[in-house]
Amino acid sequence: MSPLIDGLQYANWSERIFRQMREGGVDAVHVTITYHETFRETVLNIERWNRWFERFPELIFQGFTAEDVERARRAGRTAIFFGAQNPSCIEDDIGLVEVLHRLGLRFMQLSYNNQSLLASGCYEDTDAGLTRMGREVVAEMNRVGLVVDMSHSGERSTLEAIEHSTRPIAITHANPASWHPARRNKSDTVLRALSESGGMLGLSLYPHHLRGGSACTLEAFCAMAARCVELMGPAHVGIGSDLCQDQPDSIVEWMRVGRWTKRIDYGEGSADAPGFPPMPDWFGDNRDLRRIAEGLRAAGLDRDEVAAVMGGNWRRFFSESFGPAARAGATAAAAGRDGRAAARREGTGG
Amino acid sequence: MSPLIDGLQYANWSERIFRQMREGGVDAVHVTITYHETFRETVLNIERWNRWFERFPELIFQGFTAEDVERARRAGRTAIFFGAQNPSCIEDDIGLVEVLHRLGLRFMQLSYNNQSLLASGCYEDTDAGLTRMGREVVAEMNRVGLVVDMSHSGERSTLEAIEHSTRPIAITHANPASWHPARRNKSDTVLRALSESGGMLGLSLYPHHLRGGSACTLEAFCAMAARCVELMGPAHVGIGSDLCQDQPDSIVEWMRVGRWTKRIDYGEGSADAPGFPPMPDWFGDNRDLRRIAEGLRAAGLDRDEVAAVMGGNWRRFFSESFGPAARAGATAAAAGRDGRAAARREGTGG
Repeated sequence: MSPLIDGLQYANWSERIFRQMREGGVDAVHVTITYHETFRETVLNIERWNRWFERFPELIFQGFTAEDVERARRAGRTAIFFGAQNPSCIEDDIGLVEVLHRLGLRFMQLSYNNQSLLASGCYEDTDAGLTRMGREVVAEMNRVGLVVDMSHSGERSTLEAIEHSTRPIAITHANPASWHPARRNKSDTVLRALSESGGMLGLSLYPHHLRGGSACTLEAFCAMAARCVELMGPAHVGIGSDLCQDQPDSIVEWMRVGRWTKRIDYGEGSADAPGFPPMPDWFGDNRDLRRIAEGLRAAGLDRDEVAAVMGGNWRRFFSESFGPAARAGATAAAAGRDGRAAARREGTGG
Repeated sequence: MSPLIDGLQYANWSERIFRQMREGGVDAVHVTITYHETFRETVLNIERWNRWFERFPELIFQGFTAEDVERARRAGRTAIFFGAQNPSCIEDDIGLVEVLHRLGLRFMQLSYNNQSLLASGCYEDTDAGLTRMGREVVAEMNRVGLVVDMSHSGERSTLEAIEHSTRPIAITHANPASWHPARRNKSDTVLRALSESGGMLGLSLYPHHLRGGSACTLEAFCAMAARCVELMGPAHVGIGSDLCQDQPDSIVEWMRVGRWTKRIDYGEGSADAPGFPPMPDWFGDNRDLRRIAEGLRAAGLDRDEVAAVMGGNWRRFFSESFGPAARAGATAAAAGRDGRAAARREGTGG
């Protein structure tokens, strides 16, 4: 039986939510542990998770390898995989890539809406692509097994990350811009390049990424998912719900504003609607993930395709992505911009 | 065949030293990675080691579990286990115990010569024993599998650490004060309590810990080792050479002075001899560890005892110490000062 995996959540974590994960039969979740935090602040967030793991060992544990998904399923628990939505946590120090990977970080966005030291964000006017440090850090992420996530990055940066990375990358939470032209959604050009390179798209349930926003129906979402499977192939689409359950509006402000501006930046929101948008009534917590499986079946996906989208694809991607690169891949990474091509020649791109 | 393990070194690491480890057939070394450094500075030191592991994969790799000793032997490499000589690396934050253990820290001294937040050092006039935070941190170290090392601590603190810890502790590098009454050497009371609780003593080759200093002979050292085996039993003695190979004298000054004084503190040295003392002529680098094995045989230890002292005991101690505590042990640790007794009752004391 295929696992149930959510490719991104950032909830206001509590025992209640962990119990809902179990009620929903969720085997693994990629959780955001840091946005604009420095390394030391990120470690404090990890310490907070360590206390939850210690306190609720019968509900959750930290995932490090793809096999932890099966360990979770066998033990009736949920494996929690760490991710960063911005590279602030590595500061200006490439050595922190390996250190954070050792601490369990498995995804890192190269930028969050704005320009970072590594890449451009989707809200910048100009996207100059991967920076010098960005190319070095992608090679290091490839080496240790930290997944490049371009969910909040600009188009050119994303295409260059796909090209430069010797291993498939992810867009953990976004939808096709052809369905809903939000800045955070992705062009068909990006989605095709992503799937052709072996990467993964996690479909987002966040209302600003949905046609019709909070009023989007399960049917409309699943019809979009089915078209996405047609565009990208059934092996490259998963769920990345972007569930921000129980978060106060002060958090979405922090996500958008961090410490980079003294003004309010509304991001995907507006002065009229500055807070978290209400979730669609058919998706409020982890127990509702199963509804999506039913909806996908109704939208015409066959049983195997539904299993793949609901977790099988993430499971395969985890197994290809979380370990150290084969030596040939590491060499290819060192070779720089021809990395992907070199890795393909040597058969280590996956 | 029993492994060859050195229980403490702090060299000025280089390819030359790593190659000497291989020439000497050293399977594992506990290396000091931090003294007075903050957490962030300690992580920079780990990053430096990560670069060595990346650069010399055919010579060394980072050890995390006791089984890595056999992995090292099979692959003809040396497993490097991290340790801290002072708890500065956890700052005032107990959560960093688990974080540093995840990064591979396997030993931590509760104090280094001076009073720390956790315990008193052997150079303080008054030793008030474990502090409130010290007791909490020992319980947390017991829980995650980070070994309490009392090499530079005061007598009362050391006895209380032995008593309070639910798992055996170590004195990784010191000799009996009855043989050479240096401040850093340990009383028979401490050594007996250490061995009776299942702990380990690593015998030091550092000249200030040797009778006769740099002129101490191999025969005298091995005769002392044989008496130590008599006092503590053959299962509780190992080597902790305290080899500081190729270090400039500025380093021993940093070790003693850190940032706690503006004056020079000579520690075990003196104004006349402020630097590193010259090593005995029979112990200059990792290739000389084998001489000690020969010397122990000449001093009357049988073949099994020599194998135990040269690495077998550390190997067993690693397997008892580096993993998480059994749940019962964790509960006992939470019970505080009755920890050891409770753990003994439940048979989880290690």
